[in-house]
Amino acid sequence: MSNIMSDKLQMEPISLKNVVVEDAFWTPWQKLVKESIIPYQWDALNDRIPGAEPSGTIRNFEIAAGRREGTHYGMVFQDSDLYKWMEAVAFSLQLDRDSTWEQTMDEVIDLLAEAQEANGYLNSYYTVKEPDNKWTNVKDDHELYCAGHLFEAAAAYYEATGKSKIMDICSRFVDHIIEVFGREEGKKKGYPGHPEIELALMKLYRATGENKYVSLCQFFIEERGQQPPHYFDIEKEKRGGTDRFNLKNYDYFQAHAPIKEQTTPEGHAVRAVYLYSGIADLAAQQNDEQLLNVARTLWKNTIDKRMYITGGIGSSEYQERFTVDYDLPNDRAYTETCAAISLIFWAHRMLQIDGDREYADIMELALYNGALSGISLDGQSYFYVNSLEVWPHTANHRHDMSSVKTTRQPWFGCACCPPNIARLLASLGQYVYSKNESEIYVHLFMQGETDVKMNGNNVKLQQQTQYPWQGNINITVQPQKSEEFAIAVRIPGWCQNASITVNGEKVQVNQEGGYAKFLRTWKKGDEINIELDMPVEVVRSHPEVRENAGKVALKRGPVVYCLEEKDNGSNLQDIEINEKKQLEPTFEPHLLNGVVTIQGKGTITDRASLSGSLYTTSTFERTSKDIKAVPYYAWSNRGEGEMIVWIRN
Amino acid sequence: MSNIMSDKLQMEPISLKNVVVEDAFWTPWQKLVKESIIPYQWDALNDRIPGAEPSGTIRNFEIAAGRREGTHYGMVFQDSDLYKWMEAVAFSLQLDRDSTWEQTMDEVIDLLAEAQEANGYLNSYYTVKEPDNKWTNVKDDHELYCAGHLFEAAAAYYEATGKSKIMDICSRFVDHIIEVFGREEGKKKGYPGHPEIELALMKLYRATGENKYVSLCQFFIEERGQQPPHYFDIEKEKRGGTDRFNLKNYDYFQAHAPIKEQTTPEGHAVRAVYLYSGIADLAAQQNDEQLLNVARTLWKNTIDKRMYITGGIGSSEYQERFTVDYDLPNDRAYTETCAAISLIFWAHRMLQIDGDREYADIMELALYNGALSGISLDGQSYFYVNSLEVWPHTANHRHDMSSVKTTRQPWFGCACCPPNIARLLASLGQYVYSKNESEIYVHLFMQGETDVKMNGNNVKLQQQTQYPWQGNINITVQPQKSEEFAIAVRIPGWCQNASITVNGEKVQVNQEGGYAKFLRTWKKGDEINIELDMPVEVVRSHPEVRENAGKVALKRGPVVYCLEEKDNGSNLQDIEINEKKQLEPTFEPHLLNGVVTIQGKGTITDRASLSGSLYTTSTFERTSKDIKAVPYYAWSNRGEGEMIVWIRN
Repeated sequence: MSNIMSDKLQMEPISLKNVVVEDAFWTPWQKLVKESIIPYQWDALNDRIPGAEPSGTIRNFEIAAGRREGTHYGMVFQDSDLYKWMEAVAFSLQLDRDSTWEQTMDEVIDLLAEAQEANGYLNSYYTVKEPDNKWTNVKDDHELYCAGHLFEAAAAYYEATGKSKIMDICSRFVDHIIEVFGREEGKKKGYPGHPEIELALMKLYRATGENKYVSLCQFFIEERGQQPPHYFDIEKEKRGGTDRFNLKNYDYFQAHAPIKEQTTPEGHAVRAVYLYSGIADLAAQQNDEQLLNVARTLWKNTIDKRMYITGGIGSSEYQERFTVDYDLPNDRAYTETCAAISLIFWAHRMLQIDGDREYADIMELALYNGALSGISLDGQSYFYVNSLEVWPHTANHRHDMSSVKTTRQPWFGCACCPPNIARLLASLGQYVYSKNESEIYVHLFMQGETDVKMNGNNVKLQQQTQYPWQGNINITVQPQKSEEFAIAVRIPGWCQNASITVNGEKVQVNQEGGYAKFLRTWKKGDEINIELDMPVEVVRSHPEVRENAGKVALKRGPVVYCLEEKDNGSNLQDIEINEKKQLEPTFEPHLLNGVVTIQGKGTITDRASLSGSLYTTSTFERTSKDIKAVPYYAWSNRGEGEMIVWIRN
Repeated sequence: MSNIMSDKLQMEPISLKNVVVEDAFWTPWQKLVKESIIPYQWDALNDRIPGAEPSGTIRNFEIAAGRREGTHYGMVFQDSDLYKWMEAVAFSLQLDRDSTWEQTMDEVIDLLAEAQEANGYLNSYYTVKEPDNKWTNVKDDHELYCAGHLFEAAAAYYEATGKSKIMDICSRFVDHIIEVFGREEGKKKGYPGHPEIELALMKLYRATGENKYVSLCQFFIEERGQQPPHYFDIEKEKRGGTDRFNLKNYDYFQAHAPIKEQTTPEGHAVRAVYLYSGIADLAAQQNDEQLLNVARTLWKNTIDKRMYITGGIGSSEYQERFTVDYDLPNDRAYTETCAAISLIFWAHRMLQIDGDREYADIMELALYNGALSGISLDGQSYFYVNSLEVWPHTANHRHDMSSVKTTRQPWFGCACCPPNIARLLASLGQYVYSKNESEIYVHLFMQGETDVKMNGNNVKLQQQTQYPWQGNINITVQPQKSEEFAIAVRIPGWCQNASITVNGEKVQVNQEGGYAKFLRTWKKGDEINIELDMPVEVVRSHPEVRENAGKVALKRGPVVYCLEEKDNGSNLQDIEINEKKQLEPTFEPHLLNGVVTIQGKGTITDRASLSGSLYTTSTFERTSKDIKAVPYYAWSNRGEGEMIVWIRN
């Protein structure tokens, strides 16, 4: 059912099932997800990790299903831990239909069916603990959020297996929600405090074609922020004035104004960007140019004024939120891993709509940097917060930096980012290609292949590359029979010069929206070769980013670099880089699972010229220093130490 | 009674009563204290400020005295507001015995005598509210802290008037404390969670010569931090495990280790430095070289590793505390006004002991910068927190900067710093001169005079200067009859070159500990003239202060400068100063009550070269820019705006 196409969509993603990633960079991570993260998390959900705090998640559903006695354990949104795990498993089944996990999934789905109430309601917390208080606090209580994660898992599992039982559960649940929420007399005009269900409903719609999912999504988006009276005030008054979380500012929930009046990204970053993703989905499906412009305006503000160079967003620990334009402190960056992931979701949707490489550039940027930094190379530990400057000496002692962890934390320390990374990595293939009736798009560069139908003709595209370490990409086209269509390959915004050949001959190609478009009659074995110049780039910030004044960052291709104490000694802030001297990329196969490092020259204060006093009218001597930068995503894999992205120049 | 001299003291301060300050810079502020702050605060203590929150302080004592019915209002340490005010009044009476305020003081002292319990106990909170819980929580409950402020006020009032009634109240109160606290069986081995009483007891000792005050001070200092068991644990257990404030780290109270094992300044900055001041007093009186070395070590660590260029200390809002070496962020500097004031107290004590100008330099630095910045030029508003970089755009929106106020707050908004500034300004004269048997010391440069006895001979020293705006100081010596003694004038550490004449003739003088010492037989009208070179200085930080890497501060004489948006436009962090070009000081009589400004050249990003995108591989053009710096203490007197002390160079 994936060919439901809107006028607003330039293209649709090629489904994960039709994409194989066999890539030196990404495949090891996908293996980690399958072989380590999914089994570990399943044990965690079943309280079988020695030494870890219990999760209680499966147990909660068993109680709700009447299979056992007991009370609910954990957070009000505990159910979503299972659903996120299920989605990751479903994605991995799309790649490789593993009968063990499919059986486990079917058993879990049976459990969910038993836990679902007769009227369709499904939430273990409320069923077990507060059966009389359902839907009384949509601002704080994540019932709709959990439902959303169920719907995402369902759509992914249905795509993987074609089994409809979980879709039936969702359908009955949505029917129940529609009975409770709506504009009709006696229904609640509410919407979730934590957006997420919007994009999930659109996934159900894409999987089934049923309009009820779109209508509900539209209702939630249109009601959001309407006032007076504000729905959150109405339900609070009905509760007798109590709150679960006492947050007074409705911008935290993106509910401070009706959606069509919102122009800047506000509040909790993950909530915001899940919502904007749902808005993009709805706008495209509804052909709603006005709503689409809301998404475009929010996008532009996010990218031009509130995003770190790593693709991280949400610069404040307090409320995990966006703050104001250009407020991007490095040492107190919050930039939750989930927020960078949500930016990938949003970018991917905007890309299908507008077909502009800027979206793919940002998707790639967040993927290789702000999202990937959330997980250690061995998959055993995680950053929830992804700072761009860490000085353990201070960060471990300042209370106003308590959210900054100086090393990644083990899995069970944080429940939300690890499954989000897992589902991202498991579903990576769906971000690589798109297609429409006459074009195949190559957005990302990963070795592997895709199978796609063009006018009924089976076409295989094989991609060979050592990306992101090398800029050469070779695409072999294998149509079943010769066929005319276009292949559109992204020429990344970071690339100043690309050489392109087709079948070994240099060609001039049209670029549209940043994509090189090759329209021709393709025959078996045709080859496109693209050589993206990938020099070390010295990047500067807009001068309103005060913390970066007088500083530069190093970037090569999509990869942002950093200095680590391990390679450069301590007091990294004292280092001045000489950008006029050669900055040399070197592939180091045995470092950090194999990375390109950047080596250059700089200076540092000559310690011999220091008097020991804090302040002096003397100038300090500086001595030359060799500098080595490593990819930002790979930092903190060699013990605790200092790190900076922005280097004085 | 001020001539009780220890072997450890090189000199003693010349009493406030014998010093007249008639100085273009300082006298207006002293007038503010007398004519505006003292009357305002008296009204506040009596709940007569319309619109302000009630203080309840006088009312509390009236209830304790049985003059009226009611319950206690305010904080557990509310009494200290009255005592601090009394001390400021007492100092102002030492300068000018104003009969109205003396009568008010006597009435207040009568009230205190009535509120004092029969056994000597005096604290309105406990007498009124928790009579059975006295002395059960010296960690949190400020009973000894309030007592200390009473003792300081008493010593000052006794010095001003010779009236002993308040000293008798103190004596009886101390007798009671000695009955409760001590090493003897059945007594509490406790000490205050908020140090202050230590230095106050030494003031009572200096005023009376009674050893009981020293003994109690010594007991408190020696018991502090002893363990196991720790006294704070003992009293907590006796309370049944409850706490008023749940602070688990005893370094907050400087009670993490015995005093003689403490080497770094830790915890709440004001508590710490009040304690260190008391330690200095006790060590000098006791001739305790080991204890003195503790104070010297703590001093050196404070000055060399944990002090802002303004003399501000305590870099973290959390617990208002010291953190770790070189952790001196500018935009989140806490640097409470009271902490800079306490540094003046401590420096003043160390100076009398060691006679080294470094102490006087820091005393002067904190006075002209970190302390004075706490009060607006009109005396109507106050900074509790003195940041070195304020960007309202961010500071008003980041929760982790909520302690940073972008403009000074009106008086009644904060209860602790305003009376502390008031007592400092009222008692300024006592910091200017010291003497011993054969020497008169001039530490600070303020126009005015002092009367002092040298070998029974009355000597008047008249100081003429336009300090801190000019470096010329003229001292006229007026002995009753010719007399041999030395006059020692500080040559400040910031001064690279000083020209000195005596009676118009250039002289070479010995410098001892940074003081130019003139030993001769002085006769009426002899004149010393000192011309301190006072160029604009460009100051750098130790490179371990990461936030100041690549930046300089401007200083002239003792005055630290800053850039304000008002003079330099917005985005001050973008400005680069050209320190090679002339930095020109100009006296501007109509600006900020008359200040020397510094004008120079710099550059700023050419906005025309910006693309609007956040990150770019282009370099930015820079255009030249005239720069004007104003004294840091005078910032934020012209509306809200940006400010920086550390400027890129």
